[in-house]
Amino acid sequence: MGLIVKKFGGSSVATTEKIMAVAKRILAEKKDDDQIVMVVSAMGDTTDDLIQLAKQLTKDPYQYEREMDMLLTTGEQVSIALLTMAFNSLGHPAVSLTGMMAGMKTDSVHTKGRILDIKPRRIKEELDKGNIVVVAGFQGADEFGDPVTLGRGGSDTSAVAIAGALHADSCEIFTDVDGIYSADPRVEPDARRMKEITYDEMLEMARLGAGVMQPRSVEMGKHFNIPIHVRSTFTNTPGTMIREAYTMEEKDFVIRGVAHDSNVAKVAVLGVPNNPGIAHSIFSALADAHVSVDMIVQSIRNVEKNVTDMVFTLAHDDLSKAKPIVDAVADKLNAVAVLVEEDVAKVSIVGAGMLGNPGIASRMFGALANGGINIDVISTSEISISCLVKTTDLSKAVNVIHDEFFPKKA
Amino acid sequence: MGLIVKKFGGSSVATTEKIMAVAKRILAEKKDDDQIVMVVSAMGDTTDDLIQLAKQLTKDPYQYEREMDMLLTTGEQVSIALLTMAFNSLGHPAVSLTGMMAGMKTDSVHTKGRILDIKPRRIKEELDKGNIVVVAGFQGADEFGDPVTLGRGGSDTSAVAIAGALHADSCEIFTDVDGIYSADPRVEPDARRMKEITYDEMLEMARLGAGVMQPRSVEMGKHFNIPIHVRSTFTNTPGTMIREAYTMEEKDFVIRGVAHDSNVAKVAVLGVPNNPGIAHSIFSALADAHVSVDMIVQSIRNVEKNVTDMVFTLAHDDLSKAKPIVDAVADKLNAVAVLVEEDVAKVSIVGAGMLGNPGIASRMFGALANGGINIDVISTSEISISCLVKTTDLSKAVNVIHDEFFPKKA
Repeated sequence: MGLIVKKFGGSSVATTEKIMAVAKRILAEKKDDDQIVMVVSAMGDTTDDLIQLAKQLTKDPYQYEREMDMLLTTGEQVSIALLTMAFNSLGHPAVSLTGMMAGMKTDSVHTKGRILDIKPRRIKEELDKGNIVVVAGFQGADEFGDPVTLGRGGSDTSAVAIAGALHADSCEIFTDVDGIYSADPRVEPDARRMKEITYDEMLEMARLGAGVMQPRSVEMGKHFNIPIHVRSTFTNTPGTMIREAYTMEEKDFVIRGVAHDSNVAKVAVLGVPNNPGIAHSIFSALADAHVSVDMIVQSIRNVEKNVTDMVFTLAHDDLSKAKPIVDAVADKLNAVAVLVEEDVAKVSIVGAGMLGNPGIASRMFGALANGGINIDVISTSEISISCLVKTTDLSKAVNVIHDEFFPKKA
Repeated sequence: MGLIVKKFGGSSVATTEKIMAVAKRILAEKKDDDQIVMVVSAMGDTTDDLIQLAKQLTKDPYQYEREMDMLLTTGEQVSIALLTMAFNSLGHPAVSLTGMMAGMKTDSVHTKGRILDIKPRRIKEELDKGNIVVVAGFQGADEFGDPVTLGRGGSDTSAVAIAGALHADSCEIFTDVDGIYSADPRVEPDARRMKEITYDEMLEMARLGAGVMQPRSVEMGKHFNIPIHVRSTFTNTPGTMIREAYTMEEKDFVIRGVAHDSNVAKVAVLGVPNNPGIAHSIFSALADAHVSVDMIVQSIRNVEKNVTDMVFTLAHDDLSKAKPIVDAVADKLNAVAVLVEEDVAKVSIVGAGMLGNPGIASRMFGALANGGINIDVISTSEISISCLVKTTDLSKAVNVIHDEFFPKKA
C-alpha cells in the first residue's frame, strides 16, 4: 500500500519483450490500493541511434543543443507510449506523460538542464482516476515549452524529483545490479550487498568512483527526504535502501564501503616560489576551464629558497585540456618542471561511523602496507579517506582494504 | 518576397541526404526578405516502423488511440529536429516546433483529430527573429496538452491551416508529382498539367478519386482563401495553383479533368415495396455504421404491385461491413433479393465550365458509346458528371473521354 515511483533504465526496456516483462512484473507486485508512477528511459540504443542520425547531417550535432533535445526527447516518448500500451493490453489502465506533461519545469540549458520545479497536478489527476502513470524520464520543458534533457543520470533524477513532489512513500530505481555493494563486485568477489546506506555516504561513494547512482539523484533524494530503493530489474530480492539514517541495527561495520576510481591523473608543479596566491593562480586557471581538481598536496622543496612543490590529481579525462593550462601558469611562475603521472588510481573508504573511530585510518594504511602497496597521496573528508596508489596496485588495494574491514566469513 | 509555408512529405525527407537536399533547395530559392515556415512529415517509413513496434505488444494497437498518438508524433519530431540542424549547419538560423508548440489546437479524437484553432504566436516570434521555422505536420495538442494526430492527409492540412492562420502569401505542397493533371498520367498518357484549378473543382476531383490532394486540406485552403501551390520535390518547374478563381485566360477547356475511382461496389436491393421511408430505412442503417453511399438510383420494377428496385454504390472497402446491414434491412422489407456487383468502377468529368455548356453530358456519353463502353449508372453534381462502368472498361473510358475534351495536339 502506498504511492511508489519506479524507474526503469534503457536496458530494462530495450525491446518490446522486455517492456512487456516490466509491465507484467509491476502488475504482479502491485497491491490493489498501490498508486504507481513509472519513470522510464529511451529503449536501449535509441539515443545512440538518434545521435548517429544527427551526425550524418553535421559533424558536431551537439552544437545545436536545442535541436538535439528536440531529437532525443522522442526516445523516451516512444518507450512511455509502448509501456503504457503493455499495461493496457494486460488489463490495467495506464496513461503516458512526457516530461512536460508531467509538470517537469527546467531551466533552458539544453542537453544539461536542471529541474527548477515540478507541478505534478496531471500525475495526481491520472493516479486518482486509477491509472498507472508512465512518465518520460530524462526530460522536461523550459519556460518557453521547449523540450530540455537533463543530462547524465537524468532519468534517476527525474524519478527521485517526481517522488519528492508527490511526497511518495519511496522511489525504486531498477538497475542491472541488485543494490549497493561494499565494493565493486567485479573487483572484490566478497563484496556484500548493503541493506541500507545514508544519502551522505552514498554521495561520498559516488564522488569517489562508485558508479551505481549519479550524485544528482541522491542529492535530490536527500533534499526531499525520499527513500531510494536501488534494486534489480531481473530479480525480486530487496536491494539497498538509501535514506537519511539507519533504521536497522546494521552497525556491524564501521565503514560502508570501499570505492575506487581509475580515471585519475597526477600533476606535480615542481619548484614554484612559495608566495601567497600560488595555489590560487594554478587552480583558478583550471576552474575557469571547468576542470575539477581533487587531492591537493603542497610540500616544501627548499626552505632556504622558499620554494615549494604543488601536487594535485584530476580526472584523467581532463588531462589533455588541463596540461597546457598548467604549463602556461608554471611558465609564468618560473616553476622548475611540470610532471604528469598517468598510472595512478584512487582507493577510498567511506562511512559515517569513522567519525567516532580514530583507528580507522591507521587500519587502512596498515592493510595497504601489509599488502606491499605504496601510498602516494592521502586525502580525507569527514566520512572518507582516500589514498592514491599505482594503477597496477588498485585491485589488490581494494581487496586488502575490504578484507580488513569486511572480514571473510569462515 | 513574402511569407510562404512549404510542406514536404515523408518521402521527401526519408533519409538524412534527402533532408539536406531539401534544406539546400529552400535556401537556394529563398529571397533575403522571404519568411519561410516549413511543415514536414515523419521520415519515410518511420510511422510504419513505429506501428510495427506497437504490434509486437498488442495485435490491435489502434485500440489505444491516445498512446498511438503519443508514439507516432515522435516521427515528425525527429524530422523537424534534423531538418532544423541541416538549415543551421548550412548557415541559416532555424528553429523547430512541434504541433503543440506551433499553436495547433485540436479536438481529442485521437488518431483522427480535427484542428479547432491555431495560435501562431510562437511561429511569428521565431520568424521575426529571422528564423526559418520548421513545424511538425500531422499533429497538434488537445485542451489537456495531449498530442493528437490529424489522420490521413494531416500534414497537408497542417500546412494549409498554418498558412491561413499566418495570412501567408501562399502554401506550397511539395510532392512526388509536379502538379494536378487533367487525368491520372498512369492511365492517360496525354494527361496535361494544369496551371490553375479552383478549390471547388479540386474538391470534386478529390471526391471522385483523384489522389494528389486530400479534400480536407483543400477545404482548409478555401476557408482561409490561401492559394495552394502543388509542385514537385524533384524539379523547380511551377506546378498547379489551387485558388478561388482563375487569374489567367485558361478557358480553352470546358472541363478541368477526368477522375476515376476503382474502389467501388454496386448493391441492388430488388423488389421492395415503394412506400415512403424505404430509402431512409436502408441508408440510415448504413449511415449509423459510418458507411457512405455514393450514386443512388431508384427505379420502378412493377407499377401494379407498387414494387421498386433500389440501386446504390459505395466504397468497395466498406462492402464487407455494409452487406450484412443491407441484408438485414432487405429481410425486414421483404425484398426479393440483394445483389452485389464488385467489378464496377466510376469515371467522372469535373469542371465549373460545364454549368454554362449544356452539351457536355452528351459529349461524355457519346465518347463512351463510340468506345463501345456500356454505362450502368449516371450521377451528376453542379460541376461533375459520373458514370459507372465495368472495371475492365475503366482505363479505356478515361482515354476516350480525355480524347473528347482534351484533343491530342497534332
